[in-house]
Amino acid sequence: MVRATARRRVVRLRGDGSSTRPDALAAEEPLEIRVGGEALTVTMRTPGHDFDLVAGFLVGEGLVHGTDELASLRYCAGTDQDGANTYNVVDAGLRTGGALPLSAHRNLLTTSACGLCGRDTVDAVRTHVRWPVAADPLRVAPRLLYGLPDRLRAAQRTFDSTGGLHAAGLFDAAGRLLCAREDVGRHNAVDKVIGWALREGRLPLTGHLLLVSGRASFELTQKAALAGIPLLAAVSAPSSLAADLAEELGLTLVGFLRGEGANVYTRPDRVAGGRPLVPGPDTSPLADPAPTPAPGPAHRS
Amino acid sequence: MVRATARRRVVRLRGDGSSTRPDALAAEEPLEIRVGGEALTVTMRTPGHDFDLVAGFLVGEGLVHGTDELASLRYCAGTDQDGANTYNVVDAGLRTGGALPLSAHRNLLTTSACGLCGRDTVDAVRTHVRWPVAADPLRVAPRLLYGLPDRLRAAQRTFDSTGGLHAAGLFDAAGRLLCAREDVGRHNAVDKVIGWALREGRLPLTGHLLLVSGRASFELTQKAALAGIPLLAAVSAPSSLAADLAEELGLTLVGFLRGEGANVYTRPDRVAGGRPLVPGPDTSPLADPAPTPAPGPAHRS
Repeated sequence: MVRATARRRVVRLRGDGSSTRPDALAAEEPLEIRVGGEALTVTMRTPGHDFDLVAGFLVGEGLVHGTDELASLRYCAGTDQDGANTYNVVDAGLRTGGALPLSAHRNLLTTSACGLCGRDTVDAVRTHVRWPVAADPLRVAPRLLYGLPDRLRAAQRTFDSTGGLHAAGLFDAAGRLLCAREDVGRHNAVDKVIGWALREGRLPLTGHLLLVSGRASFELTQKAALAGIPLLAAVSAPSSLAADLAEELGLTLVGFLRGEGANVYTRPDRVAGGRPLVPGPDTSPLADPAPTPAPGPAHRS
Repeated sequence: MVRATARRRVVRLRGDGSSTRPDALAAEEPLEIRVGGEALTVTMRTPGHDFDLVAGFLVGEGLVHGTDELASLRYCAGTDQDGANTYNVVDAGLRTGGALPLSAHRNLLTTSACGLCGRDTVDAVRTHVRWPVAADPLRVAPRLLYGLPDRLRAAQRTFDSTGGLHAAGLFDAAGRLLCAREDVGRHNAVDKVIGWALREGRLPLTGHLLLVSGRASFELTQKAALAGIPLLAAVSAPSSLAADLAEELGLTLVGFLRGEGANVYTRPDRVAGGRPLVPGPDTSPLADPAPTPAPGPAHRS
């Protein structure tokens, strides 16, 4: 990977002692995303797979739905103080067809619902989802899910040296890892995976699973849905609005996927053994009104 | 806390079995931030401490430097489909004085350096930092640092029930926890802490320490610097650009603060026992060119 890590000297404290030694840090650099030469946004990302990142970002914003809508990707001439190209500006050319003009997208999708309520935000995303995720016939066994985190972890190259990257992995219905990407920003890792799929001509990602190494936010759920992915799994907790959006779209949302356990928040019928949530009775032997404790030690990063 | 969690039914998978039970999720809702009635941005946040969040956000963007520059904070009349106030729109009134007009800030500070390179991004932040962080005489013992994560963890109320929130804590030089805040977005947790301090008339936060439960990104380092905080500590890894910015500003950046260990990336002279990084010799007994492994099990969320 290009510039995925940066070396620095660090003082290492252990108990009352200390030593000075070299260390590797996850690289973070700004990337300006342009469309047709016009600046759209800047994201702080780990360099590498930049074209995938831009392609996936455009999918997640509802600007691109298939490979044929993306005409070109190229680095612009952004130069540093020594005149060298920084490779931190990427311009995307679109075959717009009947799409909205870019000006209609200036407020990025996630933040275009004017903040009035979660309901409006869910609706704003729903109107942009082109693929019928709710009808996706994907079915997987719980034990297939349990095996995914180790496969993604094994594919993470930079994390082992820096401890500083989020990861996202795309799997097929048989649990085969198709693409793994890392980034300091978890949304970027997901964009890189979905952009890879777009550029490989694989959208919509019917029958696929997306795994993220951290939490499942509203934004990540939005990105999965706009790529046509019917199942999003997270190692940590989902947010309430992620679950609301997943329910609205008929996407299966899995959280706390660790060891031989997981929680399924929406559409559990896609996971064998997962019974429908509505209108079935409470099958908990405890029928405990208190919150279910998270399985295993909870993550906090 | 108001609406900090949301209850949902969940299918809990354990091995080959499953049960259905209630669960608590970290709440996520959009918040629109306005200044003088004009929309500035929308952030996805956990409801609660919204005025602190907005105040801290304005500090982090270089729009507000002290309590006297913030004239008012109020909820606007954003209503849901039933006509109830959603409490998801906050308008801030500024006493601008000689400050720049809001239009000059429309591109948020983090993303206003046009993405050319990390160097430009660091420079953009440096020009907005008003407090002389580099000259801050703060000195702390390593064992004071080691004790901070447990104190922050003890103050996290929502995390224990949802496993889904980032936390930020502000400490004084004696290690006393002054303010702890949680949010689905780690930047929001930091904004809430700094906004609390602003509204308490405590800025600049000379001689204080900020601890975050996850990674230290460029953005979080920027927020600490703009509040005048001389030491930022993170439970997980920092990014390269976070270390670059901390070095440029003379801010002490601590990472992997776990158990009785930590890495100090910049200005280690503030941590007793931490020797200067430049120009001292490499004191590592190994002088190993390979990256230093992260202490303890690395976090990945």
